[in-house]
Amino acid sequence: MRVTIWNEYRHEKIHAEIAALYPDGMHAAIKNGLADHGITNVGTATLDEPEHGLTDEVLEATDVMLWWGHMAHHEVDDGIVDKVQKRVLEGMGLIVLHSGHFSKIFRKLMGTSCSLRWREASERERIWVVRPGHPIAQGLPPYFEIPQCEMYGELFDIPQPDELVFVSWFEGGNVFRSGCCFHRGNGKIFYFRPGHETFPIYTQPEIHRVLANAVQWATPVAGPAYPYSQKGSTRPVAINEREALEPIGAASDERVRVG
Amino acid sequence: MRVTIWNEYRHEKIHAEIAALYPDGMHAAIKNGLADHGITNVGTATLDEPEHGLTDEVLEATDVMLWWGHMAHHEVDDGIVDKVQKRVLEGMGLIVLHSGHFSKIFRKLMGTSCSLRWREASERERIWVVRPGHPIAQGLPPYFEIPQCEMYGELFDIPQPDELVFVSWFEGGNVFRSGCCFHRGNGKIFYFRPGHETFPIYTQPEIHRVLANAVQWATPVAGPAYPYSQKGSTRPVAINEREALEPIGAASDERVRVG
Amino acid sequence: MRVTIWNEYRHEKIHAEIAALYPDGMHAAIKNGLADHGITNVGTATLDEPEHGLTDEVLEATDVMLWWGHMAHHEVDDGIVDKVQKRVLEGMGLIVLHSGHFSKIFRKLMGTSCSLRWREASERERIWVVRPGHPIAQGLPPYFEIPQCEMYGELFDIPQPDELVFVSWFEGGNVFRSGCCFHRGNGKIFYFRPGHETFPIYTQPEIHRVLANAVQWATPVAGPAYPYSQKGSTRPVAINEREALEPIGAASDERVRVG
Amino acid sequence: MRVTIWNEYRHEKIHAEIAALYPDGMHAAIKNGLADHGITNVGTATLDEPEHGLTDEVLEATDVMLWWGHMAHHEVDDGIVDKVQKRVLEGMGLIVLHSGHFSKIFRKLMGTSCSLRWREASERERIWVVRPGHPIAQGLPPYFEIPQCEMYGELFDIPQPDELVFVSWFEGGNVFRSGCCFHRGNGKIFYFRPGHETFPIYTQPEIHRVLANAVQWATPVAGPAYPYSQKGSTRPVAINEREALEPIGAASDERVRVG
Repeated sequence: MRVTIWNEYRHEKIHAEIAALYPDGMHAAIKNGLADHGITNVGTATLDEPEHGLTDEVLEATDVMLWWGHMAHHEVDDGIVDKVQKRVLEGMGLIVLHSGHFSKIFRKLMGTSCSLRWREASERERIWVVRPGHPIAQGLPPYFEIPQCEMYGELFDIPQPDELVFVSWFEGGNVFRSGCCFHRGNGKIFYFRPGHETFPIYTQPEIHRVLANAVQWATPVAGPAYPYSQKGSTRPVAINEREALEPIGAASDERVRVG
Repeated sequence: MRVTIWNEYRHEKIHAEIAALYPDGMHAAIKNGLADHGITNVGTATLDEPEHGLTDEVLEATDVMLWWGHMAHHEVDDGIVDKVQKRVLEGMGLIVLHSGHFSKIFRKLMGTSCSLRWREASERERIWVVRPGHPIAQGLPPYFEIPQCEMYGELFDIPQPDELVFVSWFEGGNVFRSGCCFHRGNGKIFYFRPGHETFPIYTQPEIHRVLANAVQWATPVAGPAYPYSQKGSTRPVAINEREALEPIGAASDERVRVG
Repeated sequence: MRVTIWNEYRHEKIHAEIAALYPDGMHAAIKNGLADHGITNVGTATLDEPEHGLTDEVLEATDVMLWWGHMAHHEVDDGIVDKVQKRVLEGMGLIVLHSGHFSKIFRKLMGTSCSLRWREASERERIWVVRPGHPIAQGLPPYFEIPQCEMYGELFDIPQPDELVFVSWFEGGNVFRSGCCFHRGNGKIFYFRPGHETFPIYTQPEIHRVLANAVQWATPVAGPAYPYSQKGSTRPVAINEREALEPIGAASDERVRVG
Repeated sequence: MRVTIWNEYRHEKIHAEIAALYPDGMHAAIKNGLADHGITNVGTATLDEPEHGLTDEVLEATDVMLWWGHMAHHEVDDGIVDKVQKRVLEGMGLIVLHSGHFSKIFRKLMGTSCSLRWREASERERIWVVRPGHPIAQGLPPYFEIPQCEMYGELFDIPQPDELVFVSWFEGGNVFRSGCCFHRGNGKIFYFRPGHETFPIYTQPEIHRVLANAVQWATPVAGPAYPYSQKGSTRPVAINEREALEPIGAASDERVRVG
């Protein structure tokens, strides 16, 4: 299994206090967290690399991608976004983190605004597991806390998740569906709320655990291949079945239409 | 309640045999069908009108829109598509018909390719109700048939429907999820498979019944208003809740983090 | 539309302070609330009546039933529960209130324990609408509060709701999926969390609004009749389709099995 | 991982032609099929053994159970059924086969009648994968066929599946949701349609593949333990959280109720 962590990687270069928290970028902290759980075939890619680090070779080789973006969503090239979407439909897992809710790729895959309420007040968050039998909840207690966070509150404008794994309680009075699974094409998508750049959330053990679980869960399954992709194009094709599987017209014409 | 039927309206003008079936366009046949069920506040709009007939005034006034397109999906203006999507998120119902599976608006709202298998062999389709308690199944028998149709077969590349109402059997050996409900933002979406331009499907009473039911079901509900739209823009906004609803920091610092 | 409110009606007769809040029983307060929204064809039934007030005549005539129970779930007759389940599968709506989560009928329809965490500490609850386009959210603000309540917290052991309408925030640090829709057979089921007997929750306008909306939503749809009931029995039947709808064996024997 | 295959094991002892197909019972054929996929820690249990072969020791040790029953559903002891349900809620996987749709355990977990249409006419079934990214579809082609089968047709009276993996086409004109995933408590449930006792279906390689995939998928996850079981009882308990996680009453009394 090959993982690629994509990080916008701007905040860490601009703000000294964020750089102090994440000297090598949030992607490095996440990479360390995955390694603690034995996931080591992990590459990183960032916005300011050529093609945002997401060349065709990288995309083809990636089984699960993580995505963190915030201040520069609009700088992500639309053609790259189309390629990432195609890869998800073909089966690549995608884990969207925190402010990635407003990324082009997440909004494109959801079809909604993906908007929400938010507040920066360094408040406490308590994350409740509402689906304890889910692979992403493996090894977790019934709930865990993030001591200080940026609040995201409902209404979170997403399609109803196929699987709702976590619901968050916030000190300031809000709630949020903070762990949401979606299936699109052959691919699995997990949105995970925590992760603000001004707090050391990506060094917290429970967060590492969730991300490692999500990577395992989102790994592609070798089922029937996604049939609608063509090499070198992001435009889907339909399949014209010229040959019927069964004889047509065998029924007698007198057959009465029932209804 | 105000309904707008949008039709590409090209096939009917190009092919004599289609014009014979639908002399005033498929939208006219659908409009007649809705009228038979008492839905009379119905306008129509077509591709070749200015702004495709979907001016801001029409869009604002529309509660439920029906959409039929096929050969000219690519000619639909992206800006209009963005406005229709915005209206759906705000609560407008949308009923997508047959070859509309590949329309820009449906693909944008689904986030998948919306591709499928297809075959033109004039075969029989039997549509089974798999959710008899659903409002869209009102007045229907356990199944009904379409004597001759174009086949659409699985894999239909859509998100798992929030509500699956119909599954089709085809003479040539295929199956299809042919009546699918989705919820996006405040809006309801219904995809309904039947409706090829070369068959008189839009004059069949069961089809009229389903479309009338779907219009009723998709009518907006006066719940909390969709909060993320701004007048004159299709770009969503987030809500900054500067004032917390509850006091933050009231808990003693000695409180141990539980997990 | 005919509504029946079923109430255990024991607490109100035993505890003076509860009798003071609900002198004619909680069912009377709920009936008043529905009347304020124009729903007036409403009967009541209680545990200590013959057949718990749920005779065959009452059951047959009821379109939507509300159910409140707590201290005497085990006294409800299993045969009556079977009949209520049968009526739900045939299309009757069922609205289960608060401590009714542990009623025989709810547990029978869910298939899970329906257990939860709870706390009596007179804390505040804030109910967030997470599905604003849902008919049950009609007329509601983005959230509303209950000043004092008994807490119910996750993990709520139910199947994932088909539609999640409300999520509750509690002052003491918990969350709860407090407005949950389920579809079973031809019937619609709504579980609504608020409603403890020691607080005047059933006199609160927002609660009346939700209950009235839920009654409208749960009203049966005249779709294909539920096919598996037999008069006078709660045991389902299967349908033996002796006559095939299509000819069997028409395909040539040389046809290769594809896979 | 420990698997237990439960088989009613009556047809094979009564009918010579069934005994010829399955000389050691269908459970033996299924066991062979799992072994071909490397699943070898597999026990069997049958109706006529003491406690139907499902002692407390067997139940506690079982991670995934398969269930085949037909002519003697009513002979299964209610107390055993309650124990199996408890184990599912605690996390045990359950795979229900073919005529097991009418078993006590499946009906108890679904809450519906689980009825359907059926026909014995030795017709062809074509099983389409409608969710190719699902673990249960691993290694499968887009569809596969069963040359001769008993038909099961819609309406299948089940809750809408959490994940719909297969839809069947039948020669005689019916369709069926034939691969359905449900989540109840911490446990995963898979219903798989094929498997009539008069055909060699449990020797077919694709069927073995699906069953092996389903066993892997249904294996319990080590998430938060199911909290509502007590040793030696099938009656669930609720959790009284006497200690609040957050201070109650901290908010000023003047706070206006918002709505």
